[in-house]
Amino acid sequence: MGKVIGLKCATCGKIYPPDSGLFTCPDCGPYKGTLEVLYDYEELRKTLNRKNWINNDLPWHYRYINLLPFNDISLIPPLQVGTTPLIENKRLNSKYGFNILLKDDTRNSTLSYKDRASSIALIKALEQNAPGIIVASTGNAASSMAGFGASSGMPVYVLVPETIPEGKLLQLILYNAKVVKVKSNYDKCFDLSMEIAEKTGLYLRSTAVNPYLSEGKKTSAFEIAEQTNYNLPDYVFVPVGDGCIIESVFKGFKELFMLNITEKIPKIIGVQAEGADPLTRAFQGKSSEITFMDKPTTIADSINVGVPRDGIKALKAVYESNGMFISVKDSEIIDAIKELAKETGIFVEPAAAAAFAGFKKARKEGKILPKSSVVILLTGHGLKDPASIKNNQQVDTPVLPPDIEKILKLLSL
Amino acid sequence: MGKVIGLKCATCGKIYPPDSGLFTCPDCGPYKGTLEVLYDYEELRKTLNRKNWINNDLPWHYRYINLLPFNDISLIPPLQVGTTPLIENKRLNSKYGFNILLKDDTRNSTLSYKDRASSIALIKALEQNAPGIIVASTGNAASSMAGFGASSGMPVYVLVPETIPEGKLLQLILYNAKVVKVKSNYDKCFDLSMEIAEKTGLYLRSTAVNPYLSEGKKTSAFEIAEQTNYNLPDYVFVPVGDGCIIESVFKGFKELFMLNITEKIPKIIGVQAEGADPLTRAFQGKSSEITFMDKPTTIADSINVGVPRDGIKALKAVYESNGMFISVKDSEIIDAIKELAKETGIFVEPAAAAAFAGFKKARKEGKILPKSSVVILLTGHGLKDPASIKNNQQVDTPVLPPDIEKILKLLSL
Repeated sequence: MGKVIGLKCATCGKIYPPDSGLFTCPDCGPYKGTLEVLYDYEELRKTLNRKNWINNDLPWHYRYINLLPFNDISLIPPLQVGTTPLIENKRLNSKYGFNILLKDDTRNSTLSYKDRASSIALIKALEQNAPGIIVASTGNAASSMAGFGASSGMPVYVLVPETIPEGKLLQLILYNAKVVKVKSNYDKCFDLSMEIAEKTGLYLRSTAVNPYLSEGKKTSAFEIAEQTNYNLPDYVFVPVGDGCIIESVFKGFKELFMLNITEKIPKIIGVQAEGADPLTRAFQGKSSEITFMDKPTTIADSINVGVPRDGIKALKAVYESNGMFISVKDSEIIDAIKELAKETGIFVEPAAAAAFAGFKKARKEGKILPKSSVVILLTGHGLKDPASIKNNQQVDTPVLPPDIEKILKLLSL
Repeated sequence: MGKVIGLKCATCGKIYPPDSGLFTCPDCGPYKGTLEVLYDYEELRKTLNRKNWINNDLPWHYRYINLLPFNDISLIPPLQVGTTPLIENKRLNSKYGFNILLKDDTRNSTLSYKDRASSIALIKALEQNAPGIIVASTGNAASSMAGFGASSGMPVYVLVPETIPEGKLLQLILYNAKVVKVKSNYDKCFDLSMEIAEKTGLYLRSTAVNPYLSEGKKTSAFEIAEQTNYNLPDYVFVPVGDGCIIESVFKGFKELFMLNITEKIPKIIGVQAEGADPLTRAFQGKSSEITFMDKPTTIADSINVGVPRDGIKALKAVYESNGMFISVKDSEIIDAIKELAKETGIFVEPAAAAAFAGFKKARKEGKILPKSSVVILLTGHGLKDPASIKNNQQVDTPVLPPDIEKILKLLSL
């Protein structure tokens, strides 16, 4: 049950023992040497099949415990995570001539996809009796970890750049996280979090360098398989910053395929914002070499990343699945937020909207086959970042006296 | 299947035909004459039992179609509603010595309980081929209706007082609602919405006067029955403003009891804010006469109601279930928000926190039996109204240079 047999380097392929305590491959360094959690797939293939691979006695995404890196179900935190709806809106299908499925991960407890990773990080920290969890973040990852820590009484320490918006800080403080604003940028906070984890024994939840986070993030692929009754979509669109979500989703599909539970792997399409798209650039050059960007700029703060911490695995996910990377403009992201809200009733944050904008662009440019089926991963709720849309949408509504004739006239009723 | 046989006046008991088009009993007027949707319970009792009353082929709360007022499943909107988690947090149980279950309705699509009502209102409007839906509201009900309207392409018209906060307005505009700010208060908007519905054939979703809204709101009771494996809790705590949610939850429990699907009805506890508690006052006077409050005041805007539109049925729910009404201070509501976030990772808006504050007060005053089981209805997400908590919580975090020693010292690590 959930037996991890090794941690494999994304670049050199060397396999380390699961209890090595390593975060990245010492030979390949922190960016190229991210690790992948390996299970005994040979053994699992003998025992698991489409009928028995899910444990329905457990709640939420822990139902996939056979492919998750823990055994002790008493550690499961009492907070909903995953098991989010896969929405089909027929009007949207007609509009675009595709079979579109919206994976609505705005429905997670702290309103973002990050809950999938935080829930597993919490379990690993509890397993180790860690005195607490440390995370460097500017946003969703920290509030997600703080929420899950709160649910189980695990202290959460957060390092943030001093520029953090007050709203996000408020959420962290309500969840009782111990927050330090650092007079520096995110990268420095990241480095400090690693150093502190090493010195103190705090469990490290900073993104990409902890291979177990992917194990939580891969479960949306499992849910998509279940929800489509194993008729997997042709394409899956994923917003990409650090690259952790896209590589995890690919890993999820790959595992099911390896275990003969599914019959194909969807093409994985990574969507980046034009101002922060080192992976699209690498993809366009048909390369696995990533040129970092110094000053990434996009309104989609969750994917505003110039130095993708999980870039190597993200590129692999796209190359191995015959997918692609695509970049979209901020204006296309804003339009996508408005269109999704207006056409489907789902209000997303900019990063999530980027995935939908990417679908529209790929369709327009003929990069995806007409009438095929696509899943679009909606990774965060619009109320996480109302400012971004407020600055781009006129909130202009007429004020009328309480006169029914005037109101009817204005509304053309 | 979901056959409605009549609409019964809450005060005089007269039964009107379901297609009468009435909103309230003409004899008893708009406050006392709210109507209750009746099914053919005799017939249902013969055919439904614990094994077959749920239709698992349908999604979300539509699984309870046997007790819902529609038949045409093609009208089900493509947006998640209900099927929210019932969370048990063992640390919270130990702290209070009760078996506490948190019904986390912050997980609905527009982040509030109102989605349960809006989903059914939309179906009724679609059934009638209504040209649109009109709602008077200052907050959650309007954004919920707008979101659901968007999901199915149904135009939604909203009348709001001109004082509506910009954030809530933004959400309405994104969902493509046609919004008119009225130079007047909520009550005037309410009256105008009724008048416009009558004149134009728009479907009316203003709260309490439309009996079908309760049918959506009652489904949390059904979920609680299922989720507790029919071992119903002793008490259910519900925040109360207009009184629609509490009467609906009671109706849900009562229907299951009448159909022999459950064996008891939990005691229903209504929680009001001290500055807006006409129902608690009526209850304390052991009366069914409600004295309206002119200027209700509480930070919990969703229950800031002096003239409860569904007060008669709300009082009945409490009297008939041997429950009670209780009022809490705004300071207790703020404390409850903080405690829930800190102890459980669930971040709620003030109205939802009121229910938890009510539980704490009832426990402290010995009004509920120790060690009994309680459900607390958490009706809306904290990010719906971050201002209320921001004004009551110091967001004061130290800023440090990127110096690991100083950071460790500050964090006592």
